[in-house]
Amino acid sequence: MCAPQAEYELCRRHTASHVMSMAVKMLHPEVTMGVGPWTETGFYQDYDLGEVKLSDKDFKKIEKKMRWIVNKDFAVVRRTVPAAEAREKFGHDPYKMELIADLVAKDAELTFYDFVNEAGEAVYSDLCAGPHLERTGEVGTFKLMKIAGAYWRGDADREMLTRLYGVAFATKEDLGAYLTLLEEAAKRDHRKLGKELDLFCFSEIVGSGLPLFTPKGTFLREKIAGTIKEIQERYGFTAVHIPHITKKDLYETSGHWQKYQDDLFHVKGKGQTEFVMKPMNCPHHTQIYASRPRSYRDLPLRLAETTMCYRDEQPGELLGLSRVRGFTQDDGHTFCRMDQVKAEVTIVVNIIREFYTKLGMFGEGQYRVSLSVRDSENLQKYLGLDANWDRAEQMLQEVAEEQGLNYERIEGEAAFYGPKLDFLFRDAIGREWQLATAQLDFVMPERFGLAYINEQGEKEQPVMIHRAIAGSLERFMSVIIEHFAGAFPLWLSPVQAHICPVVDRHVEAAYDLRDALKTVGGRAEVIDPSDTLGKRLRNAQTQKVPLTLIVGDSEVADGTVTVRKYGEKQDETVTQATLVEMIAGAK
Amino acid sequence: MCAPQAEYELCRRHTASHVMSMAVKMLHPEVTMGVGPWTETGFYQDYDLGEVKLSDKDFKKIEKKMRWIVNKDFAVVRRTVPAAEAREKFGHDPYKMELIADLVAKDAELTFYDFVNEAGEAVYSDLCAGPHLERTGEVGTFKLMKIAGAYWRGDADREMLTRLYGVAFATKEDLGAYLTLLEEAAKRDHRKLGKELDLFCFSEIVGSGLPLFTPKGTFLREKIAGTIKEIQERYGFTAVHIPHITKKDLYETSGHWQKYQDDLFHVKGKGQTEFVMKPMNCPHHTQIYASRPRSYRDLPLRLAETTMCYRDEQPGELLGLSRVRGFTQDDGHTFCRMDQVKAEVTIVVNIIREFYTKLGMFGEGQYRVSLSVRDSENLQKYLGLDANWDRAEQMLQEVAEEQGLNYERIEGEAAFYGPKLDFLFRDAIGREWQLATAQLDFVMPERFGLAYINEQGEKEQPVMIHRAIAGSLERFMSVIIEHFAGAFPLWLSPVQAHICPVVDRHVEAAYDLRDALKTVGGRAEVIDPSDTLGKRLRNAQTQKVPLTLIVGDSEVADGTVTVRKYGEKQDETVTQATLVEMIAGAK
Repeated sequence: MCAPQAEYELCRRHTASHVMSMAVKMLHPEVTMGVGPWTETGFYQDYDLGEVKLSDKDFKKIEKKMRWIVNKDFAVVRRTVPAAEAREKFGHDPYKMELIADLVAKDAELTFYDFVNEAGEAVYSDLCAGPHLERTGEVGTFKLMKIAGAYWRGDADREMLTRLYGVAFATKEDLGAYLTLLEEAAKRDHRKLGKELDLFCFSEIVGSGLPLFTPKGTFLREKIAGTIKEIQERYGFTAVHIPHITKKDLYETSGHWQKYQDDLFHVKGKGQTEFVMKPMNCPHHTQIYASRPRSYRDLPLRLAETTMCYRDEQPGELLGLSRVRGFTQDDGHTFCRMDQVKAEVTIVVNIIREFYTKLGMFGEGQYRVSLSVRDSENLQKYLGLDANWDRAEQMLQEVAEEQGLNYERIEGEAAFYGPKLDFLFRDAIGREWQLATAQLDFVMPERFGLAYINEQGEKEQPVMIHRAIAGSLERFMSVIIEHFAGAFPLWLSPVQAHICPVVDRHVEAAYDLRDALKTVGGRAEVIDPSDTLGKRLRNAQTQKVPLTLIVGDSEVADGTVTVRKYGEKQDETVTQATLVEMIAGAK
Repeated sequence: MCAPQAEYELCRRHTASHVMSMAVKMLHPEVTMGVGPWTETGFYQDYDLGEVKLSDKDFKKIEKKMRWIVNKDFAVVRRTVPAAEAREKFGHDPYKMELIADLVAKDAELTFYDFVNEAGEAVYSDLCAGPHLERTGEVGTFKLMKIAGAYWRGDADREMLTRLYGVAFATKEDLGAYLTLLEEAAKRDHRKLGKELDLFCFSEIVGSGLPLFTPKGTFLREKIAGTIKEIQERYGFTAVHIPHITKKDLYETSGHWQKYQDDLFHVKGKGQTEFVMKPMNCPHHTQIYASRPRSYRDLPLRLAETTMCYRDEQPGELLGLSRVRGFTQDDGHTFCRMDQVKAEVTIVVNIIREFYTKLGMFGEGQYRVSLSVRDSENLQKYLGLDANWDRAEQMLQEVAEEQGLNYERIEGEAAFYGPKLDFLFRDAIGREWQLATAQLDFVMPERFGLAYINEQGEKEQPVMIHRAIAGSLERFMSVIIEHFAGAFPLWLSPVQAHICPVVDRHVEAAYDLRDALKTVGGRAEVIDPSDTLGKRLRNAQTQKVPLTLIVGDSEVADGTVTVRKYGEKQDETVTQATLVEMIAGAK
């Protein structure tokens, strides 16, 4: 059952999924069923429809039945069943039988969730691990969203099933707000804007999940990475550079091989050596640390790198820049003494604050921090010395307090190798994204045998701090493209200004203006008068260029320029010097 | 036989190898033999020594016998032999028998090279494809250099043989000059300096041929790449960014798959898709070109990227940064109309000139250019329109003339897809390195179906120009580390200055000076007085730091600093303002 509020919404979606299946079965009893979980924003269920045809035109009919089931307010009852009973109940359904066989093979408990009427009869049952609401009446408002194909067990060699997607909310208002958000999100969809603003592209012969960045998108990437670089170098981080492949030995030592080898890209040449493409950078960075003897005087050692990592995501999971096969981490690792942890985490917090303040995303209500610490009831789950954990958790909390962060301490959310601070940011339409992080690690230095010589000439083990400011650059770009809806602030915009000479005789002055802006690092393009001024002004709005600069007779005569800011109706005429100053200041 | 002078030296080395083998056989007749070719700088021969023990202590003895053979001035006579004769002659030698079997299987001609005395008797014969000198007397001066193990046929599963290395020259003076060069090169060896100056490292668990760049080495990388970026952006190149893997489909289209698939790193995830790590960037860049319709107004399109490529080099071929498995190309591709080729190649030449002039490597006698054109007797070897070839070769020659390049036209050296300009640079000890290039390509735009709409609204095919300024950054670094012997010019040096406060009371002033230098982008480190001043001054020389800055009582009192330049004995006292200006100017 779903007691805590956080899990309640998840139960709502999960029970809604069963309600949908009961409705489908009421309409089409012959349908058999694959899996049907809740998701981050809703729920889905896979069906083998056999001869039945379903399309979005049938949604109303199914929703009507669903409403009937919700209104009946059936009790949702969990019960453990013997394998024989499960097999008898689902003998007609090969998918359920396969799931039952798997559970039996794993010696797992088999549970049914029954919808039970007032008379105590089960009107609908499904094999399910839960959790669920207590009654169908609690499901609230729901809506079917989409119908699509999906392979049984995600395996392209197995049966193609039909997946129905839906959402469920407590009230109509919540559903309405969600649908408005979807609409707003669709307008800002970074895949759509990426194409319209010519920021990145995909190629079928290169492959899905492998974006190619055009000049404008590359500018954006480099501006983000460069801004972080400038800030973090002031705080003492220095850049390093590592290869993108490694022998698997590196991950055998780090322990990742044993856990994640199936999610890696494996690389083979002519020889026998097994290489992999790196899915993270920390093990490589330990090798730079370990490349020479270190003394306490070398610490803290702050290494940073903007570099690509690779994970073998399923094609079905790939989504624009949000979920890719090759992503760029703005990664950093601090190697320090235990008594330097507080100062080093403070440095990371300061870098994060500077960067997100520059983006206008660090205001009140725009971010929150979770401080993930150990589960005090399960201390045996965590590796590393107890005293170090206590001290580190204490230090992270002190940093959060002293830096006035909007933070919450979350028990049991720490990784097994150390506590962390996660930074979550709210975008312009209210969605929350976990982007920056500072993660302590007591385990990796141990695994790689990292050491330094302390003041007493003894060997000691350093602590590692993993940190990311933007996280994956690709995912970060998807977030800010949608946050700004493509209308980037002046300092970040790949093209800051379109210069529009009114007619041919103003073209030379337009190029002079472009060159004047260039001398202060400005990025302006002259849009020549082969199109009408009106068309060019509209195009600048479509391209979401921050400034459109009109150069005509009076501007040429007066050394001025007429400025139309993106999204504003009112033009303003300023001197060229004022404009140059404005552009020069947008760093 | 070896007529042209260029091949004569190669014949000298090859015949010297036979002379060595005859000498070894005279001393140890039971020895059997693997292969024995000439190399870029000398020759070697592999032997199965059986019970015989050889070490470098035996070199004198072997050289003495070799001298006897050279002095005897045997004629070197080539003759074709039937397989039966070859088998009879080498029946005792399993390696030769294996080679004979291979040649017979390939239906190849079997040839012996005999050393023939005045009486016309063959005193020594070897199975060999040649070419050779006409007489052993022409071998000149020689020297055995090294003894090492080598697998038969480079296969770690086959027999381990013993490899003897040697060199041969016309005169003692030439040999002497070569040995001096070797000695000088050893002192400058970038692998040795890379370690001493902490520029890069290797890790056994990451793998050979996969360098990791430490902060100083990364600075050097980024300074080189950044310098090129700054120059080329002024000439209109814009940065793009591509993923490091691709489906093999990309290379099937480009035609590389058919030719080079065995030399690629193959990548596999959970799915069936075959990926490869990119060995070059041009096919990816065509996909950015092809991502939207292009008009003649979009051309020239100049895309540049500093990005890693991967080739599966044999472990035995790997060498420091010179030969690696993952290398970084400062790559660029211009897509232009045929009538823009001359202007675009001129741009590339200007970028190359600016960059190498900055490095002090573009002076007279420091570089030469080869203009590679078609072999006029074999025009059918080349793809693309005749008229385009003629025009392009003409344009390249005009660029070379108008830009006053020190160039030579080389017939038959063009690739099958277009003519090119290669830039070769001479380093401080006289070795020549091919680094920069501008290569025309008529074929790839065709293969990828690239097009633009011309003024008449018709589809036309663009020309591609591949260009590299530094080439592979890793190889380039190996070249300039050795060229400068690690003592980089001020603008390029990762650490420009060591600031040495004489005693504790000068430490604060030293940090103030460091901060003053930092404000103008200076890179200085304070070396605190825990060591004596003498030791710190010596360390700065070992670390090849351009400037050592001494801050003592008089310097603090006068606002001056005492400067010792790298490699100079004389100190100089200047005002801090002068020093800051000097550092500010070193960009």
